[in-house]
Amino acid sequence: MKRVKRLLIIFAFINWGVAVCAQSNLLIFQTDFGLKDGAVSAMKGVAMGVSANLKVFDLTHEIPAYNIWEAGYRLYQTAQYWPTGSVFVSVVDPGVGSARKSVVLKTKSGHYFVGPDNGQLTLVAESLGIAEVREIDETKNRLKNSNESYTFHGRDVYAYTGARLAAGAISFDEVGPSLPAQVIKIEYQKAVLENDIIKGNIPILDIQYGNIWTNIDKSSFAKLGLKYGDKLHVIIFNEAKKVYEGIMPYATTFSAVPQGKPLCYVNSLLNVSFALNQQNFSQQNKVFSGPEWTVQIKKQ
Amino acid sequence: MKRVKRLLIIFAFINWGVAVCAQSNLLIFQTDFGLKDGAVSAMKGVAMGVSANLKVFDLTHEIPAYNIWEAGYRLYQTAQYWPTGSVFVSVVDPGVGSARKSVVLKTKSGHYFVGPDNGQLTLVAESLGIAEVREIDETKNRLKNSNESYTFHGRDVYAYTGARLAAGAISFDEVGPSLPAQVIKIEYQKAVLENDIIKGNIPILDIQYGNIWTNIDKSSFAKLGLKYGDKLHVIIFNEAKKVYEGIMPYATTFSAVPQGKPLCYVNSLLNVSFALNQQNFSQQNKVFSGPEWTVQIKKQ
Amino acid sequence: MKRVKRLLIIFAFINWGVAVCAQSNLLIFQTDFGLKDGAVSAMKGVAMGVSANLKVFDLTHEIPAYNIWEAGYRLYQTAQYWPTGSVFVSVVDPGVGSARKSVVLKTKSGHYFVGPDNGQLTLVAESLGIAEVREIDETKNRLKNSNESYTFHGRDVYAYTGARLAAGAISFDEVGPSLPAQVIKIEYQKAVLENDIIKGNIPILDIQYGNIWTNIDKSSFAKLGLKYGDKLHVIIFNEAKKVYEGIMPYATTFSAVPQGKPLCYVNSLLNVSFALNQQNFSQQNKVFSGPEWTVQIKKQ
Repeated sequence: MKRVKRLLIIFAFINWGVAVCAQSNLLIFQTDFGLKDGAVSAMKGVAMGVSANLKVFDLTHEIPAYNIWEAGYRLYQTAQYWPTGSVFVSVVDPGVGSARKSVVLKTKSGHYFVGPDNGQLTLVAESLGIAEVREIDETKNRLKNSNESYTFHGRDVYAYTGARLAAGAISFDEVGPSLPAQVIKIEYQKAVLENDIIKGNIPILDIQYGNIWTNIDKSSFAKLGLKYGDKLHVIIFNEAKKVYEGIMPYATTFSAVPQGKPLCYVNSLLNVSFALNQQNFSQQNKVFSGPEWTVQIKKQ
Repeated sequence: MKRVKRLLIIFAFINWGVAVCAQSNLLIFQTDFGLKDGAVSAMKGVAMGVSANLKVFDLTHEIPAYNIWEAGYRLYQTAQYWPTGSVFVSVVDPGVGSARKSVVLKTKSGHYFVGPDNGQLTLVAESLGIAEVREIDETKNRLKNSNESYTFHGRDVYAYTGARLAAGAISFDEVGPSLPAQVIKIEYQKAVLENDIIKGNIPILDIQYGNIWTNIDKSSFAKLGLKYGDKLHVIIFNEAKKVYEGIMPYATTFSAVPQGKPLCYVNSLLNVSFALNQQNFSQQNKVFSGPEWTVQIKKQ
Repeated sequence: MKRVKRLLIIFAFINWGVAVCAQSNLLIFQTDFGLKDGAVSAMKGVAMGVSANLKVFDLTHEIPAYNIWEAGYRLYQTAQYWPTGSVFVSVVDPGVGSARKSVVLKTKSGHYFVGPDNGQLTLVAESLGIAEVREIDETKNRLKNSNESYTFHGRDVYAYTGARLAAGAISFDEVGPSLPAQVIKIEYQKAVLENDIIKGNIPILDIQYGNIWTNIDKSSFAKLGLKYGDKLHVIIFNEAKKVYEGIMPYATTFSAVPQGKPLCYVNSLLNVSFALNQQNFSQQNKVFSGPEWTVQIKKQ
């Protein structure tokens, strides 16, 4: 009996030891800094100074400079695939030093987003739900000896706070005071079905391949009553100007059409998309992304 | 005695604890996705959801889009420097959704390669040897709730299966059924010695510097009976067209020739290569890589 | 009593276990290799072969080819934000195979820098102080079976030695023989105040945004007796040729001026810098960085 108790104690200590080692501590960085200089690395150094147990990853550092919308889209596209408790630090911050608030958003999915509240949280707030928003108290959550530096919030406040939150050095409550459960939102065109025509927006390109990703989700699309192989009539506008018009099949795979031919498919986020098999739809047709782009799709 | 036994028990538990912590769990990703969007990060998020003990690395994500040959070359160039048991997930997959099989190749060296069997495994199969090939059973090895997505095998099947294999969540046997010990191969020109002329192919460029890497290994080259400083007569063809002809020394270091002058050297993979000291051989001489490029070398 | 002793023993073992797990083992790579091929990944594979406990990071791999000065600047910009004991492996090595020594610099700050002593250590030696320099003994500190390869010191010597040092597999003494406490230095223009004009150099651009970073630190700048909002007269020369002349305010934030207008600010390294709010100063004014660039600033 005594021996069992002793072993239980041993177990307790060992499990504690293992727990320390196995804590996930996930911290994911996104910026528009690029990777040519030392800025991203300095942020990671700060994180390692907070806790050597952190597991540090990148979302992307190739957000086009100052493009808050795209930063928000990348968070939306990616966060859902990371475990609950993951902490995202997103620094695309044209207004650094201005009045925008520095916040941490906790979503209903249990993910955390650290950065300026400048619109970049629009899509994750919508898709994952807002649990709570807190303003970062910079008097407490700021890298020691960094207060002479006015322009690198990314390193001194966001990386530092995100690292401390991910490592459990502070609780969410210790980030700072709770704010109303809302974030600054960027308005954009929602997908709608009108008279058998689906309209929507092109929030982003699948940039590496030049595929066109819309915000029309698969279940909305299903209302057209399509089956694979059906021909679709697709029109794409830049504001009022028609940029593309064509017929393409609704297909499950790129190889369903000859090389260079267009197809309509459901992408990995389950949204309706257009592509040329093994070629670049965007460049060939001069179709890009942003709030000014509209698509119309109907069954032929 | 009893005490010794007790300590041994303690040791056993502690070693078990340490073993859990120290498990290498190496997972290395390669794609043609680039790093501008969230696709690579989503794959890593899936991996972290499988096990927080994984150590996740990148080979490259800058494989030119759809370039299966180059994907295979990068695996060949790199895998040998990673420890036994490392798991590579390589997603360059122009035929996604078509009939190509999704496989895991285990090489005789003890490395694992997860991805489509579309030719990208040609060179690692040759150089490291095939131990066994298994087809991924997607009914078991697929990210939960991902079966509506037709086009992101990289995340839902390959990253997930690679992560589970690297983390020990499944054994190699549990990947799926064993296949014949072969992979789809891309044909390419082997190095040969004929009448004191060595012929070979340019499989790849050392792209950052514009150096020309051939597939002629150092020991084949030694059959020319060269010593350092010997002059070589080098001709390079694109199919039947002569693109470059010149004389250059066989040298151990770039600084053996003046800046801008050509040299022949043995690269870090122990293959014969051509370079200009501190300049770009490829761009200056319009010499590139691929199966259509042939080199001829003879001692002058 | 006996039980307490037993628990202490248990504690000791567990702490030892935890210490092994929690060892920081920080290894940071910088090169001019880019990320398109497998070279960086091979270096990381070698590191993982040394110890699975290492935490491997990147500074940047986008140093312009052979640009020793910029490599040194990136180390200087970044190292201070990494914890004491961090090991940097920097491989920008146009003289590979020539007479430059392979060294490890230990700074007074407790950071380690592994690589060729070719000038790239100039700025970290100045800013962090030289504690000791040791020459790498390649007879002992070289990847096994790599001695036929003449051209990839980055992988076979620097990555291997850096990994062994970071992992505690060798002590600093075991790197090789101690050298005089100095490194090869690149001369550059220091910041000076003459007749109410501050002169300095542009060591680097904030390349992603096109901001101009000088080597004039905030405290030297303070000697002009400025307050925020003061107008400054700025002239920039490329050698003797005037490239830019303009008036701009001294500001704490970019948003202090309208979009596209110039400002002078203190950057995240506490050096005087010039920018256009949300535009690219460098490209618009054809101002770049290097020893040939000089700036003059006076209060208007």
